[in-house]
Amino acid sequence: MVRVILNGCNGKMGKVITGLAEKNSEVSIVAGVDKNSAENKFPVFHNIGECDVDADVILDFSRPEALDSLIEYGNKKNIGVIFCTTGYSEQQINKIKEASNSIPIFRSANMSIGINVINKVLKDISVLLYKNFDIEIIEKHHNQKVDAPSGTALLLGNTIKNSISEDINFVNGREGIRKRAHNEIGIHAVRCGSIVGEHEVIFAGQGETIEIKHTAISREVFAVGALKACEFMYGRKSGFYSMDDVIS
Amino acid sequence: MVRVILNGCNGKMGKVITGLAEKNSEVSIVAGVDKNSAENKFPVFHNIGECDVDADVILDFSRPEALDSLIEYGNKKNIGVIFCTTGYSEQQINKIKEASNSIPIFRSANMSIGINVINKVLKDISVLLYKNFDIEIIEKHHNQKVDAPSGTALLLGNTIKNSISEDINFVNGREGIRKRAHNEIGIHAVRCGSIVGEHEVIFAGQGETIEIKHTAISREVFAVGALKACEFMYGRKSGFYSMDDVIS
Amino acid sequence: MVRVILNGCNGKMGKVITGLAEKNSEVSIVAGVDKNSAENKFPVFHNIGECDVDADVILDFSRPEALDSLIEYGNKKNIGVIFCTTGYSEQQINKIKEASNSIPIFRSANMSIGINVINKVLKDISVLLYKNFDIEIIEKHHNQKVDAPSGTALLLGNTIKNSISEDINFVNGREGIRKRAHNEIGIHAVRCGSIVGEHEVIFAGQGETIEIKHTAISREVFAVGALKACEFMYGRKSGFYSMDDVIS
Amino acid sequence: MVRVILNGCNGKMGKVITGLAEKNSEVSIVAGVDKNSAENKFPVFHNIGECDVDADVILDFSRPEALDSLIEYGNKKNIGVIFCTTGYSEQQINKIKEASNSIPIFRSANMSIGINVINKVLKDISVLLYKNFDIEIIEKHHNQKVDAPSGTALLLGNTIKNSISEDINFVNGREGIRKRAHNEIGIHAVRCGSIVGEHEVIFAGQGETIEIKHTAISREVFAVGALKACEFMYGRKSGFYSMDDVIS
Repeated sequence: MVRVILNGCNGKMGKVITGLAEKNSEVSIVAGVDKNSAENKFPVFHNIGECDVDADVILDFSRPEALDSLIEYGNKKNIGVIFCTTGYSEQQINKIKEASNSIPIFRSANMSIGINVINKVLKDISVLLYKNFDIEIIEKHHNQKVDAPSGTALLLGNTIKNSISEDINFVNGREGIRKRAHNEIGIHAVRCGSIVGEHEVIFAGQGETIEIKHTAISREVFAVGALKACEFMYGRKSGFYSMDDVIS
Repeated sequence: MVRVILNGCNGKMGKVITGLAEKNSEVSIVAGVDKNSAENKFPVFHNIGECDVDADVILDFSRPEALDSLIEYGNKKNIGVIFCTTGYSEQQINKIKEASNSIPIFRSANMSIGINVINKVLKDISVLLYKNFDIEIIEKHHNQKVDAPSGTALLLGNTIKNSISEDINFVNGREGIRKRAHNEIGIHAVRCGSIVGEHEVIFAGQGETIEIKHTAISREVFAVGALKACEFMYGRKSGFYSMDDVIS
Repeated sequence: MVRVILNGCNGKMGKVITGLAEKNSEVSIVAGVDKNSAENKFPVFHNIGECDVDADVILDFSRPEALDSLIEYGNKKNIGVIFCTTGYSEQQINKIKEASNSIPIFRSANMSIGINVINKVLKDISVLLYKNFDIEIIEKHHNQKVDAPSGTALLLGNTIKNSISEDINFVNGREGIRKRAHNEIGIHAVRCGSIVGEHEVIFAGQGETIEIKHTAISREVFAVGALKACEFMYGRKSGFYSMDDVIS
Repeated sequence: MVRVILNGCNGKMGKVITGLAEKNSEVSIVAGVDKNSAENKFPVFHNIGECDVDADVILDFSRPEALDSLIEYGNKKNIGVIFCTTGYSEQQINKIKEASNSIPIFRSANMSIGINVINKVLKDISVLLYKNFDIEIIEKHHNQKVDAPSGTALLLGNTIKNSISEDINFVNGREGIRKRAHNEIGIHAVRCGSIVGEHEVIFAGQGETIEIKHTAISREVFAVGALKACEFMYGRKSGFYSMDDVIS
């Protein structure tokens, strides 16, 4: 049983994780950290520094500002941290990487198993197909999402770009008269209704297409990935880990 | 048996129509018109003016320049014309409409049965859904298509726009930070491989989506529609007709 | 403001409706009925007969057994009933229809706006397309759903069947050597993961296909439809109503 | 330039390959073999035994009966054979394998690059995903295809089955009341219109799905793969090769 301190336990994702962990026999939330209070079945602290419960790993779904205190606590207690928070600056990401010299650190741009499996597949097949196939990406999200394209679409696009040793340009939508260049990847951001999140990569060649599509049905999918990460982190040495390690 | 003069009989679409008509028991190509010669099973003339074969209707898959001679011939012989050529100027489209005062005239922006059925459905459901659903359009074509979005995507978009009595804006792709307005329709032009033509309209509401999609598998689909139009035009009076009439 | 008595207020769907109604300015839950208690913001009764709160309509998401008491109460108070419960016997459905002689009654096999709009579209286009198009249905649901095909797939299939004045046979999957008959509709029941509900009708002709697809993203979609039905039922005379009336 | 003898040069696929090879700078058809005559730009023989043109490889799109004469000719001239014919008996497949002891032999169940890339991906990810994801396959073909499920659906299904070290059962469609077992793979054979060929594998887990889909737009796709195989076979030693080798 992996003992977890859940940082941000009373936020939207914190609640989803709490619910899922109750049905999970491998992972147990032994303490939470949150400025807001709620009815929790475990002790909740306002600051991670106050937490005196023994644990194996910290799972963080909070805000970038919490970064320093989490690394400090991890070092003090000699336990790892799983960062699921988004919106870090480049400087903060460097801090996270540095911390992996002394404690086990886990971070992925997207916590779902599915997206990470697709990302791995793209690493394997993009070079192979690129010579004869054009590549396009379509992503769909609800009408409240303000940024386009999505971070995950860029993650997938960059994986493809880095696999192919050629100049690749991202094209965000098309309008007017212009012939498609082979080294462009069209990225199309559909925004409508309450779609949770869909990402589709199209490889289109002469007479055939391959489509690889991920659909997130609910936010639960990120919680499932986070609990997998907790299991994976049990007993790890210091170092930098990601979902790539979980799925391989 | 509808007797047809095929204008542009040795072009790409002309050949597809000839092949299809041979297997069709309702329509017979009795003469062709083309500047290029080929092995044809019917007499072929260099100019429509020279054609002395009795027919019921002219089917045109050629170039906008042929317009005047076709109308003149239709008037002289008192037979109708089906215009499947694309790329007409506004002035030319007005000429076509005027011609319908004296002879039966047929013209549609897209000759496939399927696209026209979808267009009709959009007329029926767009107002109904608009209040609670966001609307987006995705179209996919081969990498040689230079214009974006496709004429058919605009046809469908305008059908929706005209059905809803509100300001609707078309948005061709998205990039950066901006919240979606309800009165925008995102149009996404995917270009890749050898895709013949796909058009998908998405209605996305609270907790549900409706997708209506048309896929053209081969150019044959436009020929099938053209032969249907020939059957439809048999014995018609002067007037302006379109695929809307064929499918209703 | 439509005043609603929610029968089955503490069941899975009852809770979703309660949450949604709180954000809805047209509909107000003024009382609930449920054998189980929970924290509710309105008075809750164990039996509808005990409810002494004035209301405009009863919304029922409970069990077929509640039928008699609901009709009795509706007659006594002279208010309508919206039946969203599933699993009625033929005899019970007849009782529901009979009740519409004295009070306004609402019932639909599927409460989502989207499925009912698609059902209406199928009524309009099936005859038109049937001559030249084959028809197939694919439905996808989570791995806990035990019945196949889904009730909604049969609803859509029967709508198509009734529109076409010919013998139509449903074929549930294919195996072995047999040529497809034109008058068969293949129905394919995919069961996997946690898919909430997808229904797709394919019309496939010569060189083209039309696909009409509905995706339920969450159970909320049925609650949205139920609240629409409440609004629709305000001030209605006795009679039988369904989602068809709401969307037309 | 790879010099190819095309066995079955005047059949449906033979013609597609001839057309494609004319535009290909790496492969040249130097002779054909066919019982039927047509206008060919290369010498055509009635039997492979009569062919006296020097070549690097034989490309076969004919009938299983041609097998013996092809192997005999390959051994006599010391050149390889690419078998694209389908419908071999088990005994014949063993003969093909034996022949690879003396000459280079190439055979794949499906000649498209795309299907083989997907097949390779399935080998890589099926074990990984199986624990937490259900697997289903949907395949769509035109209404003239008499066998169900398609050979390619079975190829993909067996690849998945062999990757997972557990009993896996194929289920061809679902009807009635029964709960899905985790170790079943539903295979759904859609037959309609003129669809060339679509194969989709669905991995559905808790809160997310991955879909991997291949669409054949035209028969040309098999010809493209066959010409790739010709290039691949140039200068090979005796041995057994397949599309797996071409794409890796």
